[in-house]
Amino acid sequence: MNITDIHSPADIKGKSLAELQQICAELRKVLIKKLAAHGGHVGPNLGFLEPTVALHYVFDAPKDKIVFDVSHQTYVHKMLTGRIEAFVDPAKYDDVTGYTNPAESEYDLFSIGHTSTSISLASGLARARDLSGEKYNVVAVIGDGSLSGGQAFEGLDMASTEGTNFIVVVNDNQMSIAPNHGALYENLALLRETEGKAENNFFKSLGYDYIYVGQGNSLEALIAAFSKVKDSERPVVVHLNTVKGLGLPVAEEHKERFHFHGPFNPESGESTVADSGPDYIDIFANYMLDRMQRDPKTVLLTAGVPGAIGFGPSQREQAGRQFIDVGIAEEQAVAMASGLAKGGFNAVVGEPATFIQRAYDQLEQDVCINGMPVAFVDFYGGVWGMNDETHLGFLDIAMFSNIPTFLTLCPTCAEEYVAMLEYAISQKSQPVLVRTPGGRLVHRDGDFDFDYSKCSYETVREGAEVAIIGVGDFLPMALEAADIAAKKGLAVKVINPRNVSNLDENSLNELKSFRLVITLEDNQVDGGYGQKVAAYLAQFGVKVNVLGLPKALLDRYKAKELLEQHGLTPENIADIAVNC
Amino acid sequence: MNITDIHSPADIKGKSLAELQQICAELRKVLIKKLAAHGGHVGPNLGFLEPTVALHYVFDAPKDKIVFDVSHQTYVHKMLTGRIEAFVDPAKYDDVTGYTNPAESEYDLFSIGHTSTSISLASGLARARDLSGEKYNVVAVIGDGSLSGGQAFEGLDMASTEGTNFIVVVNDNQMSIAPNHGALYENLALLRETEGKAENNFFKSLGYDYIYVGQGNSLEALIAAFSKVKDSERPVVVHLNTVKGLGLPVAEEHKERFHFHGPFNPESGESTVADSGPDYIDIFANYMLDRMQRDPKTVLLTAGVPGAIGFGPSQREQAGRQFIDVGIAEEQAVAMASGLAKGGFNAVVGEPATFIQRAYDQLEQDVCINGMPVAFVDFYGGVWGMNDETHLGFLDIAMFSNIPTFLTLCPTCAEEYVAMLEYAISQKSQPVLVRTPGGRLVHRDGDFDFDYSKCSYETVREGAEVAIIGVGDFLPMALEAADIAAKKGLAVKVINPRNVSNLDENSLNELKSFRLVITLEDNQVDGGYGQKVAAYLAQFGVKVNVLGLPKALLDRYKAKELLEQHGLTPENIADIAVNC
Repeated sequence: MNITDIHSPADIKGKSLAELQQICAELRKVLIKKLAAHGGHVGPNLGFLEPTVALHYVFDAPKDKIVFDVSHQTYVHKMLTGRIEAFVDPAKYDDVTGYTNPAESEYDLFSIGHTSTSISLASGLARARDLSGEKYNVVAVIGDGSLSGGQAFEGLDMASTEGTNFIVVVNDNQMSIAPNHGALYENLALLRETEGKAENNFFKSLGYDYIYVGQGNSLEALIAAFSKVKDSERPVVVHLNTVKGLGLPVAEEHKERFHFHGPFNPESGESTVADSGPDYIDIFANYMLDRMQRDPKTVLLTAGVPGAIGFGPSQREQAGRQFIDVGIAEEQAVAMASGLAKGGFNAVVGEPATFIQRAYDQLEQDVCINGMPVAFVDFYGGVWGMNDETHLGFLDIAMFSNIPTFLTLCPTCAEEYVAMLEYAISQKSQPVLVRTPGGRLVHRDGDFDFDYSKCSYETVREGAEVAIIGVGDFLPMALEAADIAAKKGLAVKVINPRNVSNLDENSLNELKSFRLVITLEDNQVDGGYGQKVAAYLAQFGVKVNVLGLPKALLDRYKAKELLEQHGLTPENIADIAVNC
Repeated sequence: MNITDIHSPADIKGKSLAELQQICAELRKVLIKKLAAHGGHVGPNLGFLEPTVALHYVFDAPKDKIVFDVSHQTYVHKMLTGRIEAFVDPAKYDDVTGYTNPAESEYDLFSIGHTSTSISLASGLARARDLSGEKYNVVAVIGDGSLSGGQAFEGLDMASTEGTNFIVVVNDNQMSIAPNHGALYENLALLRETEGKAENNFFKSLGYDYIYVGQGNSLEALIAAFSKVKDSERPVVVHLNTVKGLGLPVAEEHKERFHFHGPFNPESGESTVADSGPDYIDIFANYMLDRMQRDPKTVLLTAGVPGAIGFGPSQREQAGRQFIDVGIAEEQAVAMASGLAKGGFNAVVGEPATFIQRAYDQLEQDVCINGMPVAFVDFYGGVWGMNDETHLGFLDIAMFSNIPTFLTLCPTCAEEYVAMLEYAISQKSQPVLVRTPGGRLVHRDGDFDFDYSKCSYETVREGAEVAIIGVGDFLPMALEAADIAAKKGLAVKVINPRNVSNLDENSLNELKSFRLVITLEDNQVDGGYGQKVAAYLAQFGVKVNVLGLPKALLDRYKAKELLEQHGLTPENIADIAVNC
């Protein structure tokens, strides 16, 4: 059959094994073509192609509920559930998101983008089914990499106590985004080596029946295994040994690089979009390697995303034991950093902004309450970070800056970024976060060798009557606005507040006589820095205009449009200043 | 020896078994006396008495590092490490906190009050030791109840990969605060039944050597086991079968009630402080039982703290399958609630404010991004909640109210509390949190049958020139201030904003002509509601005075003094209003 004739899983039911294999070959061809032209999660989708076909062949979604962890491996699922056009027609490539999305299809149960959630979400569906006295299968799909996350464990531990139908499909491709870390992976290796027969079995110890499928990309083996567990009246784990990137030699060979990739040449594996040159992540990685070399007490931790913070295989090799990837386990990364700090080390946690929130409690309890001088460096914060609703970067200032004793620094340029990193890692007085700027690399003259524990604003430009406080990577916008206002005859004072945790009341007091104070931040307004400034100045009746991003869970927004919608352009800000 | 002669663990080294047993008997006597007179964590400390003595007898703290999970079982540890006076002299009972505290002693490594953290904290200490090339023992103590927490798993999974000395002491008293929940507990039961010999062994599957101590309160057995693992060059779990509440019959019998208890009669077990009468927790429990009876689709989830939300054994029995305790696993509770909501149920998560933050990511991702109408009810929020630095209640509005799409309701009285609960659980449009008021029960006339998705302020009292916006349980303070101001000739407008997530701009616009707007909230000012109000009104140059609690990690503060220090008294507020 032509795969464009697949409109729902019903269209592959009743097919012969040979026909299904033919369908898989076609799906893979189309998938590689889209991935190469468009970019996306390469390895996870190619490696989970046959299991997805077998799941939809054996189970009866949407009656049976299939929950995909992270859901970055659901391209084939989307192809089989009415969305094939978005994979065969380049004009429609962007009609689907990169994750499951209930707004797209009833076959997608949840919007998921953070890992380790499928089992706990599915356990709720299973309990709802049991309480309602209904009968169907609940299937949670999870990758080996995601199993190290605490939430996955909490789900596994709880779900099996129900003692009813609950099928966990473990897609073991022997990789997280990067190599796995954790003792669990030694157990998975043992299970693979013994074809599932080893005495020590993590899943059995948690009350699951257990089936091992050594050929996890063999349709025949998969269909046999899924058929066996379908309608099971007991919790069961189906452990699949799969090949990440299967069918695309460059992806099979370079598993980490092809976990996610932008557009590329499918033969050579080379990127087909020009390298945009050095960015803040390169600055971070180079700074950290230098720092670790001159200071053996500096250690850098991350939770499963080394590449995202500039630590690919080569940087990891250079850093040696001073680099610690705990696997997907953010709580462990943060608490372990606290332990390392207690043990006299300069511990640094590097993570995308959207993932640090997975350790909110550990940040507040294990680090802040204990006054441990752990340095955090967050990435992809702000409007220029990731734009999927599950990976938003403009919520972080509101989260971090309101935690007592936690100092959040917002550098405005490359020079200040390095100075703040050096400060945060060297100081011993409190936990400090450095927010990696988004957007293009900015350079600025100035003396950035500063004690950033002091709350003291930098006056970047003098002016009277109107002031703009430009936080972090929005300082350039403040300066551009001041340029425009200057042309209209108004000298606007421009301030870099340096941190967003505290107010420099002395500097703010000087603004009491100003006609207007404007605050700009690359963050949602609610709970952010501008509101702190406004609350301080409002007691004196000073007019304040707080500009920033909306409090909303936006999906795949366009940064430029979003900024315009919220008045975040130099022209608009200059207008406000001039017309107040 | 007289136990008051114990100044450090050195004082019990070299003692004979008989002498140690005598010391244990003395310690227990003193401990029961203090617990009965003062209240505290009864069961955990009595059950971990012999293990603590054995730990300090065998290991050499502070060189060897012992990290206690939750650290509510460290009274005996404190008695052995220079703080005996705080247990024998009633005048000094309050000289020590209820948890480990580095400010008290070098033997206390961390301030800990949330569970499941000891292993990951200790793993950082172990890595610091190994990187420094030092030699000593790192010991993480954890209760069976805490093992269900994701962080404990992340720590277990990671720590053993180091392959060096790392000793995990599992204090298995077969209880969490309440009964345990999770498949892991079936494995622990199997290990106890087989004296540690069962084939399925959770700890071995995670790479640990394993020793079982069936008589976990026998000094002889404990000393033998700890001596065996001391200086081990491998990660090892020592699994102790202990008796919670040992030596106090009422505590052994009523393990849940005597996990933590206020002052009591040690013979009868009866409380010696008068019952303060019905409170908001009673209202919640009664409301929920009624709601579950009339609506079989309503389910209440909690994570290991049923008693804290009014669901003791009798309420749990009445609720039957509509009550779900997932054990200490907040992430699971929140994600499972999302799954239940997706399955058509009215899912309610009830948790102390300080613990919901352990599922911050799940709240935002699994619930809010998915638009699941899960109802959250938090307890002990605000200044009248728990006053330990690890359990602060006045940080929650800043945390919850800035999460997009999440609606945080703050009831001002019992009648509005019930109405908001009913609204939150019945509606299907978004996730909603109801913040249980702190302090005394307040009753108020009014029409509370309201669509709380609408952001519309309630004018509780009319006035001009000055307005007070009194959030939640601070509304009574606003009304009292208005009474005082009225006596001085000023009619102050008093507003109940109902929710702290959004602004009623229409109502705020009516205040543009006011001389002053005062906001009052039972929360830290930073990131809270007052700052939102101030930022809105500051664009019009309206004077706003934002009152609330400080951004600080306070320990064992006195609520009345704290309120006074921050101007939160009716008299002061009236003064501000009259003198503006």
